[in-house]
Amino acid sequence: MEERLSQQIAFIAEIDRLKGVLRQSLIMDGSRRENTAEHSWHIAVFAMLMHETASEPRPDLDRVIRMLLIHDIVEIDAGDTFAYDAAGYEDKEAREQAAAERLFGMLPSDQADEWMRLWREFEAGSTPEARYANAIDRLLPLLHNYYTGGVSWQRYDIVRSQVERRISPVKTASPKLWRFAMQLLDRAVQKGILSADDAGKGD
Amino acid sequence: MEERLSQQIAFIAEIDRLKGVLRQSLIMDGSRRENTAEHSWHIAVFAMLMHETASEPRPDLDRVIRMLLIHDIVEIDAGDTFAYDAAGYEDKEAREQAAAERLFGMLPSDQADEWMRLWREFEAGSTPEARYANAIDRLLPLLHNYYTGGVSWQRYDIVRSQVERRISPVKTASPKLWRFAMQLLDRAVQKGILSADDAGKGD
Repeated sequence: MEERLSQQIAFIAEIDRLKGVLRQSLIMDGSRRENTAEHSWHIAVFAMLMHETASEPRPDLDRVIRMLLIHDIVEIDAGDTFAYDAAGYEDKEAREQAAAERLFGMLPSDQADEWMRLWREFEAGSTPEARYANAIDRLLPLLHNYYTGGVSWQRYDIVRSQVERRISPVKTASPKLWRFAMQLLDRAVQKGILSADDAGKGD
Repeated sequence: MEERLSQQIAFIAEIDRLKGVLRQSLIMDGSRRENTAEHSWHIAVFAMLMHETASEPRPDLDRVIRMLLIHDIVEIDAGDTFAYDAAGYEDKEAREQAAAERLFGMLPSDQADEWMRLWREFEAGSTPEARYANAIDRLLPLLHNYYTGGVSWQRYDIVRSQVERRISPVKTASPKLWRFAMQLLDRAVQKGILSADDAGKGD
């Protein structure tokens, strides 16, 4: 088998491991933790669905989808860093950079460059595409938490202001989804599955 | 919440159930069965990776990716039909048609129409995009089987000619991937994880 094809096949086999990377979120029926591969599928579809709500200049949806499909591949080496894990975030960038170099480095060099660029664009969050992709990626776990009774909020004593900060990229990327998120957080607090800040733990 | 947004959010929550639809394939480390959501992610990335091998006229990759991301959503209602299950295939079309109507029918009507069209295009397999998408979708399980020692081939007494027929869309959609697949099948037979036709069960 020629070198190029053999690199591509080795890569597609290697990234199968993303199916074994577990996130803090539960799948919405609450039966088990979600893995990063199925999450990547879900956010790509979510991005398709909500594109009409993205702020102007409207991001190129196809670029967003490609970005969302590959940006979490680094978790194969770097693991999933829980959104509210301050210590984990300290070295997240370095861990993910090394992971990106190893994993995308398995590809033929032109593809390695292209995929690395796409991953960096997502991380930098400075294009309309990356801003919308980040917003989608942060909003969906809120739905998971809401539908599963706030399990991971409670486990880690997360309060409302922390969730708002976490999803803050949604505010400018899609004001409509931001309003929706605020309504959902209101309801989560009313249902008692998320603590309002003044309820205790505060920040 | 306005009607349109509420339909979209209900849909994104509903399709979370695809994470619970199990396929016959194992994930590549052999530890468990693969679910359809993570499979959908994997084939979308595989399509990105191998697009350069697609026959002329080269399919629009972005359309292929969207098609692959949504085409298996019908399995939420219709279940995964094993590739070699002749009885299951008898009513597969009717089951999936009903599933598509219910599931895509949850969406606002313009999106329902668009997603239904994309799903039908995949099923019909008559555009360059649908042909390439089908080829990718059929080729990846072969890699799963190869890397997991042919478990599902053996469990269902599948022989080489059946696999070749199953992946036949690859032949015209990507001759290069077809040659690769034939090499892989040669090796699978040599390793004794797939029966050559003349070894017994044959057709």
